[in-house]
Amino acid sequence: MVEKVVLLICDGLGDRPIDELGALTPLEAAETPCLDRLARESECGLMYPLGRGLVPGSDVAHLAILGYDPQEYYAGRGTIEAAGLGILLRPGDVALRGNFATVDGGGIVRDRRAGRIRVVEPLVKPLDGIELDGVTFMVKAGTAHRAVVVMRGEGLSASVTDADPHKAAARLGRVSPRDNTPEARRTADVLNRFIDRASAILHDHPLNIERRRDGHAEANYLLLRGAGHYREVPSFRERYGLSACCIAGGGMYKGIGRYLGMTVLEVPGATGLPDSDVPAKFRAALRSLETFDFVFVHVKATDSFGEDGDFIGKKTFIETIDRAARVFESLPANTLFVMTGDHSTPCALREHSADPVPIMLRGSGVRVDDVVAFGERACARGGLGTLSGTNVMHHVLNILGRLPLAGA
Amino acid sequence: MVEKVVLLICDGLGDRPIDELGALTPLEAAETPCLDRLARESECGLMYPLGRGLVPGSDVAHLAILGYDPQEYYAGRGTIEAAGLGILLRPGDVALRGNFATVDGGGIVRDRRAGRIRVVEPLVKPLDGIELDGVTFMVKAGTAHRAVVVMRGEGLSASVTDADPHKAAARLGRVSPRDNTPEARRTADVLNRFIDRASAILHDHPLNIERRRDGHAEANYLLLRGAGHYREVPSFRERYGLSACCIAGGGMYKGIGRYLGMTVLEVPGATGLPDSDVPAKFRAALRSLETFDFVFVHVKATDSFGEDGDFIGKKTFIETIDRAARVFESLPANTLFVMTGDHSTPCALREHSADPVPIMLRGSGVRVDDVVAFGERACARGGLGTLSGTNVMHHVLNILGRLPLAGA
Repeated sequence: MVEKVVLLICDGLGDRPIDELGALTPLEAAETPCLDRLARESECGLMYPLGRGLVPGSDVAHLAILGYDPQEYYAGRGTIEAAGLGILLRPGDVALRGNFATVDGGGIVRDRRAGRIRVVEPLVKPLDGIELDGVTFMVKAGTAHRAVVVMRGEGLSASVTDADPHKAAARLGRVSPRDNTPEARRTADVLNRFIDRASAILHDHPLNIERRRDGHAEANYLLLRGAGHYREVPSFRERYGLSACCIAGGGMYKGIGRYLGMTVLEVPGATGLPDSDVPAKFRAALRSLETFDFVFVHVKATDSFGEDGDFIGKKTFIETIDRAARVFESLPANTLFVMTGDHSTPCALREHSADPVPIMLRGSGVRVDDVVAFGERACARGGLGTLSGTNVMHHVLNILGRLPLAGA
Repeated sequence: MVEKVVLLICDGLGDRPIDELGALTPLEAAETPCLDRLARESECGLMYPLGRGLVPGSDVAHLAILGYDPQEYYAGRGTIEAAGLGILLRPGDVALRGNFATVDGGGIVRDRRAGRIRVVEPLVKPLDGIELDGVTFMVKAGTAHRAVVVMRGEGLSASVTDADPHKAAARLGRVSPRDNTPEARRTADVLNRFIDRASAILHDHPLNIERRRDGHAEANYLLLRGAGHYREVPSFRERYGLSACCIAGGGMYKGIGRYLGMTVLEVPGATGLPDSDVPAKFRAALRSLETFDFVFVHVKATDSFGEDGDFIGKKTFIETIDRAARVFESLPANTLFVMTGDHSTPCALREHSADPVPIMLRGSGVRVDDVVAFGERACARGGLGTLSGTNVMHHVLNILGRLPLAGA
């Protein structure tokens, strides 16, 4: 009987045929003997994370694949980023994610990542705990140039625009209300005041004085975006009766795990970058099966290579995943292995697309089909046919015998 | 990068296996080396225009395939037929399409097409501009026995029944309100009075006096049906940012184009009949790519042969399409080619059915599958799987990189 699940999601895994790869996708072109063996023992399919015609953001795609319809459970990117840094919102809170950036005297964003500054903890310190008009600002450093800001106080709303112009050499925006409620207007106003206060503090911060002196880009501005709010979400255990853990390098993916009540495991070397220790993550997944029923493992760099248009890098990284995936060939008999992507990031587009992603389910009871390779086109002929992201947990729970009877 | 699109819709293309064709469909039995080559370079699928279990009318099927959900954008056949003759409705207008027919003294329809009369302009003239109870009747001749009537005035409704009994040797109906509103009652009443007035005028019309004398069926009655109303519809350019044109022989298909704000191109020899100059239409499609981003080409006769039960004619006409389609093999690299039907018209049924139709997408970035022939059953194994009509533009816009991101 299948009782446990490993779900491996490779970010932006899907792609389009690339001439230089012999009209194959990076996944098809990669040498993946292990993934192909797994596919041979699997039921495969092609998954549209949000349905046809929708280009999935990674956050909503993950919610869908984990069985949480984004229409019902998505509360904004900031909410999930905050969860990734350990802050679960309370009702009334508003969370934003942000970058420390370099802004010149004329209000033009010169570098959205402040010279890819590596450590921002010292900059966060004097900002954390600022109070304005009854609102407390909690600021927490993320990886590299990233941070999260959580606003706590009466009468707030997440219905505000981004202050981030989303590109370099552009003029700074101000936060504006996105609807006509007093809450949205108040939030925009307080947030703009916070940003100005932070800007003044950052300008005179010793770290920036030092960076100015050394000729580095100053981290003198906090670009905020993706306001999110609290939403009540049943935990993975409440929803499915499964104890669950999350193994991820990227903050957002840890945030998804924590948002859904999973235990977020820290694996040394899991960076969410191309240098991430994929074998260590997969070994950790295997070990965590002793403690948890459901192990969600996330690998990020497939997406990053796609966004850089680096199809050789994407192909090579998939081969790294393949080598590490050998541990999944000898999973215990009570464990279902599921592998897919959260969306496609075609190297030719350098951004997410609505192209579907391959998926395979391997485990006892699965109707193994005749797909012999793990690839976009091979899986299109699989027994699962085409499915939506929210169908994935349907199939998983079905194999586990955990779906309720409809009717009688 | 793909920037332009040719969408070829062959009306009623799909069919069922026919014993006399060796248990093949007309499309499968036809010699189609060109379409098969195109399919080999395509991603294929099987499309249910309105979803499974719905038999599509051509009007709603086209709206769906062009990405306009009929639930939201269909306003009745009359509206589209009026657009086909160049009349775009204003708010409050009601449009009906009609046939000039032969009715005997006892009110029995003897010939629904008045002996397939070829030209009805002279008959339309004295009817156009009639005013009754504050309602102006605009009457415009269509091809052969066809015409359109647009009612303009206060307090009208399209919620009225057809006056057309829809078959010969049947008794004429009266227009009745289809709901209990004063508008529907008033519209039915005024429309019945118009029909009577028209009937009297037609009876004494010199053309009918002549036809009586020559032993031809009189065009002494205007059978009206398909009342439609105004609906606000975003143009193709507004909706997708694509400049679009329409190449069609049949009036209804030009109407679809005009209804969606496309430029309707007149191609000499495009008749919407089996004698239509298909090569001229396809060449015009190719030329119009210089001016437009999106070219919608419609071919009608596949459907007409199906409605006549003429499977040899349907097969032969598909071979005509195949020869003409060679121009699409050398489309510019920036152009996506899409071919499908709007529904099936099985020769054995002689009417539309809910059977799905094959579809292929050919162009840069498409995940070419291993389908090697363009046919109903070959395409069932294609990478697109089974899709709905409204998915077609999802896939097109995805290849064009024109879909917005959901989530973040």
